[in-house]
Amino acid sequence: MSRRHTNRAPRHRVLIVGGGFGGLAAVRALRRAPVDITLVDRANHHLFQPLLYQVAAGILTEGEIAPPLRGILRRQANARVLLAEVAGFDLDARAVHATGPDGEALELGYDTLVVAAGAGATSADAELAPSLKTLADARRIRSRVLGAFERAELAADPDERAAWMTFAVVGGGPTGVELAGQVAELARRTLRRDFDGVDTAAARITLVEAGGQVLPEYPATLAARAVRDLDRLGVAVRTGAGVTAIDAAGIATHAGQIPARTVLWAAGVTASPLAAALAEAAGLDVDAGGRLPVAADLTLPGHPDVLALGDMAALGGVPGIAPAAMQQGRHAGRTIRRRLAGRPSAGPFRYFDKGTLAVIGRGRAVGVSFGLRFAGMLAFAVWALVHVRYLVGWGSRLVTVTRWAWSLLARDRGARLIDTAPTLPVRAGLPA
Amino acid sequence: MSRRHTNRAPRHRVLIVGGGFGGLAAVRALRRAPVDITLVDRANHHLFQPLLYQVAAGILTEGEIAPPLRGILRRQANARVLLAEVAGFDLDARAVHATGPDGEALELGYDTLVVAAGAGATSADAELAPSLKTLADARRIRSRVLGAFERAELAADPDERAAWMTFAVVGGGPTGVELAGQVAELARRTLRRDFDGVDTAAARITLVEAGGQVLPEYPATLAARAVRDLDRLGVAVRTGAGVTAIDAAGIATHAGQIPARTVLWAAGVTASPLAAALAEAAGLDVDAGGRLPVAADLTLPGHPDVLALGDMAALGGVPGIAPAAMQQGRHAGRTIRRRLAGRPSAGPFRYFDKGTLAVIGRGRAVGVSFGLRFAGMLAFAVWALVHVRYLVGWGSRLVTVTRWAWSLLARDRGARLIDTAPTLPVRAGLPA
Repeated sequence: MSRRHTNRAPRHRVLIVGGGFGGLAAVRALRRAPVDITLVDRANHHLFQPLLYQVAAGILTEGEIAPPLRGILRRQANARVLLAEVAGFDLDARAVHATGPDGEALELGYDTLVVAAGAGATSADAELAPSLKTLADARRIRSRVLGAFERAELAADPDERAAWMTFAVVGGGPTGVELAGQVAELARRTLRRDFDGVDTAAARITLVEAGGQVLPEYPATLAARAVRDLDRLGVAVRTGAGVTAIDAAGIATHAGQIPARTVLWAAGVTASPLAAALAEAAGLDVDAGGRLPVAADLTLPGHPDVLALGDMAALGGVPGIAPAAMQQGRHAGRTIRRRLAGRPSAGPFRYFDKGTLAVIGRGRAVGVSFGLRFAGMLAFAVWALVHVRYLVGWGSRLVTVTRWAWSLLARDRGARLIDTAPTLPVRAGLPA
Repeated sequence: MSRRHTNRAPRHRVLIVGGGFGGLAAVRALRRAPVDITLVDRANHHLFQPLLYQVAAGILTEGEIAPPLRGILRRQANARVLLAEVAGFDLDARAVHATGPDGEALELGYDTLVVAAGAGATSADAELAPSLKTLADARRIRSRVLGAFERAELAADPDERAAWMTFAVVGGGPTGVELAGQVAELARRTLRRDFDGVDTAAARITLVEAGGQVLPEYPATLAARAVRDLDRLGVAVRTGAGVTAIDAAGIATHAGQIPARTVLWAAGVTASPLAAALAEAAGLDVDAGGRLPVAADLTLPGHPDVLALGDMAALGGVPGIAPAAMQQGRHAGRTIRRRLAGRPSAGPFRYFDKGTLAVIGRGRAVGVSFGLRFAGMLAFAVWALVHVRYLVGWGSRLVTVTRWAWSLLARDRGARLIDTAPTLPVRAGLPA
């Protein structure tokens, strides 16, 4: 059964670029508005980034954190999904240029444009230090980490064996803390009885942070608690250790050499190249992080019919996290609804800080919310509830809870697959 | 904690090549024997092939059907796992040549060798008609099928749109029947409300069989029932249609041209190249299917210390299915145990036929067991129970049952991901 609408007056066309947290929130905020929405994304799925590290760690699989966009928007009659990669903007003609799965050029018209293309990772060296932003990245990191233990098991030379047991995670933000904690739990709990020639629990895992504190957004007492928890898991924390070079032996930092055969990159993101493309189309300049300057109401200066939001937009006081992007998406939707009713835009966006949580390991987490500080099992339980709540779809929630329960109770992880097909960065929308 | 054994007399070394159903059954049959077992495989996981088509269809993910070999054998103290690709055999020196993850040459000695390297798919054209034997294949088929609907949605030309809605599955055995049924259920149930420009339920799916009957191993009445069930799902069955050519428009067959933009190959398998390598080492010839001739007790003629089994071994009256390989693996284990006790080999292998089941769709299956014929919901329920029973690990069983329940009740599928990274056939053991 098709939802194609025929024989009716053309409605206001809203084109939304990007099916991440911001773009999806904008689509949903317009579900009862008299508009025709087109959501364009180069992937056919939303990606629940906050749990991506669990795919890298072999706890969850892609099925839980990558729901298809068409499934999410199935019941929203005024929205359609287009699988294409956006290439550029013609703001005067109100058109977006895109490329279809077979390289065909597409031109997409709009009355209002919302761009929420997110950010990518910036590894100093994608080969020596892979980062974690896409599903392909998560599979690659999983294969790297599990492959290192396999190589240690095979190594005839004791030095070589020891070298394969050294890991470093660069970047002490929440993703770095979570990733380092998971590698440690893999080594010390999950894999412990799996190998004959190596004691995986002897793995050396270092978390490398350029600044003076891990979890820089957190109060110093909670950051110190995180360092204690990481230490108990077997993760050594090195702060003030800006990376100057990476090679096969390890990392050179301002705080000295850190041995690490396997390096994972969790430091910093850079805005989608679409931020620069949109800035150029509007005669603006991006900031040092490649982000687009937007007005306080999320519109593009000089182009009130274009809104930009999420990780690709520069707006003071707004962190680059999922709740902020979702709030901005809803704000953009509100502006569009108000204008259709003949009223002005929804005014300046104000970020409502509900708090933040970071998991360190099984039963260990830290969090701040409305001035309250949490740590330990309570923070872990709140984290689990919040993340299951925000997962898309009851099917994903059910399977995620099942996998978590299994991972906690059985000390096992279901998805410990070493991927033998090369995993390249996502470029085009579809394979040939 | 390492299970490395030191300071003890060398024990009988059993080298087992291949962690499929046959190889794993042999490892387990030796769990209480006074032997040192090395299981060598190029992948770090077992693959539950009978449910691979469900990954291709977006119902299950790799986590459920690809348990890590180390996890499976964690509690078996006399077995170790080695991740390497076997390259050749030196039967006089009792050595196997293999390649490690970084291309390093490994020589593995043995007292008894068990080779169970299985079979691969033989597509007439791997690009135009991908087959289904590995996880990478399953991801590729999933991306192809879902990508075809995306291309139909994007197509401006009605003929082009109609062409993208044509599918064919070549091969009317159980895998072909299951795959065709799943593509039909995707089109008619799961995706039905997902697209705006195309009616996915109008997809044309043809199951193409060269012989006179689908499910050739089944009684004609059950095969006719399967054809009726397939017809109700929207799959047209064409028998007597040997494929002569495949191109972008469709398939040329002995029964005429079949339009199909997307062709999936489920016809025939060919033995692992290791069958030919082992035959050459022993001065034997493989059969037309590339399979190795073995004696009735599964030993290699002239080499009683070498056993070969499963899909790569030619033995009359034994079908190429998982239960047969498992029975052969146990038989090989029994022979090794008997010889250690100073007795002769376990004698000729006899296949015990418990029956066979094929699923057509939700609530539809056919089966034969001990002369009894099943069809419909009963056969479907038996199929589900049997497959959950044989899945490895309670974690996989739990998640599989959860996903099945969700897929049946909610008409949804969790893992409908279009993979944008190229999925190449598995070659080496580990990524770089």
